[in-house]
Amino acid sequence: MFRLSSRRLPVSPAVRFAPALLLAACSALAVEQPQTLTERYERDVQRIVAAVQADNDAMPLLQELCDDIGHRLSGSPQLDDAIQWAVRRLRAAGHDFVGTETVMVTQWIRGEESVEMLAPRPMSIPMLGLGGSVGTPAGGITADVLVVNSFEELQQRGSEARGRIVVFNFAMPTENEREGAGYGAAVRYRYGGAGAAAKHGARAALVRSVTTRSLQSPHTGGMGYPDGVEQIPTAAITTEFAEMLARLQSRGQAITLRLNMEARTSPAPVPSANVIAELRGRERPDEIVVISGHLDSWDVGTGAQDDGAGVVTAMAALNALKKLDLRPRRTIRVVLWTNEENGIAGGRTYKQVHADELARHVAAIELDSGAGAPIGYGVEAQDKGKRARAIEQLGEILGLCRAAGNLPAYEGYSGADIRPMLDAGFVLLGQDADMTHYFDIHHTEADTIDKIDPKALTNHVAVMAAVSYVIADMDERIGN
Amino acid sequence: MFRLSSRRLPVSPAVRFAPALLLAACSALAVEQPQTLTERYERDVQRIVAAVQADNDAMPLLQELCDDIGHRLSGSPQLDDAIQWAVRRLRAAGHDFVGTETVMVTQWIRGEESVEMLAPRPMSIPMLGLGGSVGTPAGGITADVLVVNSFEELQQRGSEARGRIVVFNFAMPTENEREGAGYGAAVRYRYGGAGAAAKHGARAALVRSVTTRSLQSPHTGGMGYPDGVEQIPTAAITTEFAEMLARLQSRGQAITLRLNMEARTSPAPVPSANVIAELRGRERPDEIVVISGHLDSWDVGTGAQDDGAGVVTAMAALNALKKLDLRPRRTIRVVLWTNEENGIAGGRTYKQVHADELARHVAAIELDSGAGAPIGYGVEAQDKGKRARAIEQLGEILGLCRAAGNLPAYEGYSGADIRPMLDAGFVLLGQDADMTHYFDIHHTEADTIDKIDPKALTNHVAVMAAVSYVIADMDERIGN
Repeated sequence: MFRLSSRRLPVSPAVRFAPALLLAACSALAVEQPQTLTERYERDVQRIVAAVQADNDAMPLLQELCDDIGHRLSGSPQLDDAIQWAVRRLRAAGHDFVGTETVMVTQWIRGEESVEMLAPRPMSIPMLGLGGSVGTPAGGITADVLVVNSFEELQQRGSEARGRIVVFNFAMPTENEREGAGYGAAVRYRYGGAGAAAKHGARAALVRSVTTRSLQSPHTGGMGYPDGVEQIPTAAITTEFAEMLARLQSRGQAITLRLNMEARTSPAPVPSANVIAELRGRERPDEIVVISGHLDSWDVGTGAQDDGAGVVTAMAALNALKKLDLRPRRTIRVVLWTNEENGIAGGRTYKQVHADELARHVAAIELDSGAGAPIGYGVEAQDKGKRARAIEQLGEILGLCRAAGNLPAYEGYSGADIRPMLDAGFVLLGQDADMTHYFDIHHTEADTIDKIDPKALTNHVAVMAAVSYVIADMDERIGN
Repeated sequence: MFRLSSRRLPVSPAVRFAPALLLAACSALAVEQPQTLTERYERDVQRIVAAVQADNDAMPLLQELCDDIGHRLSGSPQLDDAIQWAVRRLRAAGHDFVGTETVMVTQWIRGEESVEMLAPRPMSIPMLGLGGSVGTPAGGITADVLVVNSFEELQQRGSEARGRIVVFNFAMPTENEREGAGYGAAVRYRYGGAGAAAKHGARAALVRSVTTRSLQSPHTGGMGYPDGVEQIPTAAITTEFAEMLARLQSRGQAITLRLNMEARTSPAPVPSANVIAELRGRERPDEIVVISGHLDSWDVGTGAQDDGAGVVTAMAALNALKKLDLRPRRTIRVVLWTNEENGIAGGRTYKQVHADELARHVAAIELDSGAGAPIGYGVEAQDKGKRARAIEQLGEILGLCRAAGNLPAYEGYSGADIRPMLDAGFVLLGQDADMTHYFDIHHTEADTIDKIDPKALTNHVAVMAAVSYVIADMDERIGN
């Protein structure tokens, strides 16, 4: 508020009498005393943050995406609708370029599914098949149960697994704010439980949902089959039922379950698309700063947090810069990725299709940590020096965003869709959110708009707009 | 630990030389210097609390009740099973009397039920019919929706309700630890929403679930129809969908729902039972202290918190006193009520059947606030002086239980099943629990054992055993 950014300051005395140099100096800011990022951008950033905090499109866009379209798994008609919607909305905002690029994606179809307990007493058990799982034979799989708490226990009791349904009752450790530390430990069972159980001759695997808080809420998510073992069906059950099955087993009760799943994967990939929109750079339009989230979701809930929040943050950030008539030197490109949840085909295809311009990418930003309050930026770069320099520069930029939060920059994970481009050499940035309650609703029916704090979402828009603007406008490429 | 209770102290010098008086003095404790309750019972209470904290039956009993039997609505085979189970378990503990008394109860049957949104887009909406609701005609009710946030708004927009499904989107205020303050405000819509909507010609009423935390969790519960208006079907939807419908309406979208409910109430009451077990008093066996919880639950989840916790606390408290061979002067009577959730027929019938001995009831205790940590005792009595005196005495007794928590006594609600006996003149006591998370799972599929903290449950057992023991043993009737 008290310093003015140099873009609107009179040029320095040194260039006042050199009209030929003046133009060059103004455009490249080659003043004798190089300005700090703070001196250069404080006013712009404050203007962006204040404007976004006063008004932005994120919540209205999120309502359209989640309430009117809902969940949107790769290959589903809903994802096609969401792609068309995003194109319409970005065109309506008047951006310089709006389009889609075709991406071939896996199409996994859930179909009807159920888990019934037959013994010791009949009851229905809430469940969600895991993405990528095969289905059961018609009529389902009826088998006795072995509950284990870990891969190690399965190894020890391997002989008891043959012919059974193995239940993995691994409890996710309590996550922390930044990264859901417990997720990594627990998700191994979701991803690899079926393979591990199949090695011991199990007929199916059920996995305790990856969460620390449950109200009988099954959590779906991706899984994979290792080579060389039978592909057996696998689903998530609630933490409540995983614990109940463990209690029944520990009390010596024999448990029989029947698992029915119609799940199947289409034999060939189907067409989907990344959505792209650009605010073209005023000086170096061929240099690119990507801002992004993923448009696909699992086929439950409405994908408000995962990753509707990232999608509308990127859209609203570009819209805000457009409305402010702030055109940076380089191009800011919104990418709304397809197929993050079960393949990352959107990120991989982008890397291929844009191979010839990757060298002109300056940075890519992704928000895929929900819409808890912004807490900082994770920075990745293949070159350590570049990463350190980027952390330093980004820290300075984020210091200007303090009206939107206390936001450090640190070495950390960027985002699943941009990470394939790590070896392209530019800087990858993960816009991080407070994840304290992220895994409560992750991949569940409860991932809905009411979980999104409008103020936190607004601050994400403000930060993404400000950071991408400065990175797209600053003299040097970030990290250099 | 440092004072000894008088029961094992030598009698005072004043009675040492009066053998005839000695016996009377010992039995009635008519020593010249009346002992305080603390002096008299500190050692006994500490012994009870320590023994219960070292070992008690509550969690094993709760596993049998919840895992092996599950939910148990009035008139259901599961409630019959639970009654038989409780009798078996109390008999196995060797109590002086164990039996049942027949209670005729309402039998409400849920049947198949669903809410489907037809417009603006087709989707299934999680729901639970409300206990006591009528069903829909075959084929369901298909109608446009009017969302209101309150009875007042319904009054203002009454003309828009005709022929519609009215959705009450009243958000439960955040509850506090002691009494779930927001529950009273919100439950009016669950109980009376259908009646209010019917007055305006609505065809059905949907009510936002009474909770402050939801993961797409519908909460059932009782409702009632006022005289003179059409009985229309009514169900709870999740807070998520209530908010979504409100958002859609505020964006001008027309909403059409189809409600299907097979719900019906049996034309005549059916037999159920209160379960009763007694530790007979050694001196005044006809004077009664009731300790209690309710055995019935809604027909979802497993009723672990509501009110399995109260049931096993009362059972385990009596078992603990039996094991300690502590027989108070008066009788301690466990009553496991039937039909708390939809009729209170258990409490009302008890009052009728035991009319001739109500004058000899000294106190009745109920735990029906879940199994959060014990936080104190609510005291009710028709006579204000009696209530004040009871609060004072109970405060002293609870002070002896400090190893189980910091437990004040205060004027407050006792319990739904014992409250019909308020006009019988004796003291009613509600054993209160921390309700911070009570309404998260209240009347839902998520009311399961994993939500029960074994340590808190143990402390409830310790407190109920100690308090009932002292009240059953102390010279005066509590409140006198």
